[in-house]
Amino acid sequence: MTGPLEKVSTSKAFAGELNKYKFKSAALGGLDAHFNLFLPYLKSGQKAPLLVYLAGLTCTEDNGAQKGGFFGAASAQGIAILFPDTSPRGAGVPGEEDDWDFGTGAGFYINATKPEYSKHYNMYDHITVELPKVLEAEKLPIDLTRQSIFGHSMGGHGALVLYLSSKSKQYRSASAFAPITNPSKCPWGEKAFKGYLAGGLQEGADRYDATELIAKSSDPLHILIDYGTGDKFYQQGQLLPENFLKAARAAGYDEVQIRVRSQPEYDHSYYFISTFAADHVHFHANFLKA
Amino acid sequence: MTGPLEKVSTSKAFAGELNKYKFKSAALGGLDAHFNLFLPYLKSGQKAPLLVYLAGLTCTEDNGAQKGGFFGAASAQGIAILFPDTSPRGAGVPGEEDDWDFGTGAGFYINATKPEYSKHYNMYDHITVELPKVLEAEKLPIDLTRQSIFGHSMGGHGALVLYLSSKSKQYRSASAFAPITNPSKCPWGEKAFKGYLAGGLQEGADRYDATELIAKSSDPLHILIDYGTGDKFYQQGQLLPENFLKAARAAGYDEVQIRVRSQPEYDHSYYFISTFAADHVHFHANFLKA
Repeated sequence: MTGPLEKVSTSKAFAGELNKYKFKSAALGGLDAHFNLFLPYLKSGQKAPLLVYLAGLTCTEDNGAQKGGFFGAASAQGIAILFPDTSPRGAGVPGEEDDWDFGTGAGFYINATKPEYSKHYNMYDHITVELPKVLEAEKLPIDLTRQSIFGHSMGGHGALVLYLSSKSKQYRSASAFAPITNPSKCPWGEKAFKGYLAGGLQEGADRYDATELIAKSSDPLHILIDYGTGDKFYQQGQLLPENFLKAARAAGYDEVQIRVRSQPEYDHSYYFISTFAADHVHFHANFLKA
Repeated sequence: MTGPLEKVSTSKAFAGELNKYKFKSAALGGLDAHFNLFLPYLKSGQKAPLLVYLAGLTCTEDNGAQKGGFFGAASAQGIAILFPDTSPRGAGVPGEEDDWDFGTGAGFYINATKPEYSKHYNMYDHITVELPKVLEAEKLPIDLTRQSIFGHSMGGHGALVLYLSSKSKQYRSASAFAPITNPSKCPWGEKAFKGYLAGGLQEGADRYDATELIAKSSDPLHILIDYGTGDKFYQQGQLLPENFLKAARAAGYDEVQIRVRSQPEYDHSYYFISTFAADHVHFHANFLKA
């Protein structure tokens, strides 16, 4: 069972506040889960729409909050931002601490189906189901009928997949910085799918691959992607935004519905993210405030 | 002798670039010194004015660059920002690694006069003399006739002291987030002055105490200070902005020349700094662009 929320720390920021919480997570097999929540300044009784930020490999709930540069725009637009962690912590599965791109810090925002991982590695449910319930149970001033999602790298993959696969249309829009867009065709994704999923690559391609999902989609969509041409992971073929773009256009989406922008010389760092941070918040504001 | 500059890394940011460098520092006794330099987008032949950011206790050249949120405003205003480290690294003085508020990560932006520290702990010369020379020797596109300085906590102390003590009027303006303003009257400053200076507290008060320096000043000044009332170090009496403000008013400075702002509920973190980051950059732009 999901346990009560404990406030770990609070900092005033941009006239609102950035609070860190922890709770016992049922989705993550009873482990402690941490998250950060930015709340803009709100009048009494007012609720903010929610933008969920998913971080990349090796990150925690802190990286996006500390380095993303999102709060100026979020404050001005009256948008709350939720920063979950990137994996369970301390599951105790043998080998989970061995690699930086698998296991701890690398949950890939999926529900594991291999027996050794399936008790704890359920970041998909943690983010789509459990965290909204926790926010609601604690009566935090969030309007959960207005959610959008964005992320970086592995978290960009997560944002696109959670947006495209949600049967309940949980998110109004998705955006991503340097996302892994075709994980069943790149080393990071292959390793994750083979490692976490009983059905291996095929299960991953069917359920958690944004390029495969967009090819089968016919719903109206609002997606923005930025990647840098100086990004070594782009150059190494981990991100494959061209595959996603090609599949999107083949599925009939135009550049108003799905925009993929190549940004000359930018790399994979938070310096890149912060450069386009306000752009992405404003993109989501179009849909969150309507 | 100061050695040549080596570029450690480069990231495009806000249409400009953030470069990390290292070099053998004569001021720091021949040790490797690192710094970050943000350069806004410049046309060929153009030079940017320079804003120097001094970080607080335990920090390096990275904290302000990664978490400060300065680049959006600096890019729009065409201002370069230099981020030095906070102390020499690896001096090998017995005890320098023992405390977080003295020695490594805590150079206090002074020139040490105690024999065991005076070879390496010369951050005052490193920042006011050596780094500008290095930038000039490498022909980086900086206009060194236009410099201002700001900083956080120990770095706010540094910014105020370097501004007020410069005989050559090196800096046009100074600002600070939660600065230590009267170090000879607070535990952090007392420990630093007694530890680094042969003349102890008296030498510190005479040369490196912003409140003492402002009391003796009659030059035209441009100073902006922000501190948060929720800052535990303010509450503990480490910052003492009231002392500085009282001395400034007694010396005849009005609130146009020296502005000290109390910000309700903000704490000592980079969430506080980033909230007022653009404000401070715009403050300096008034003087740097003229």
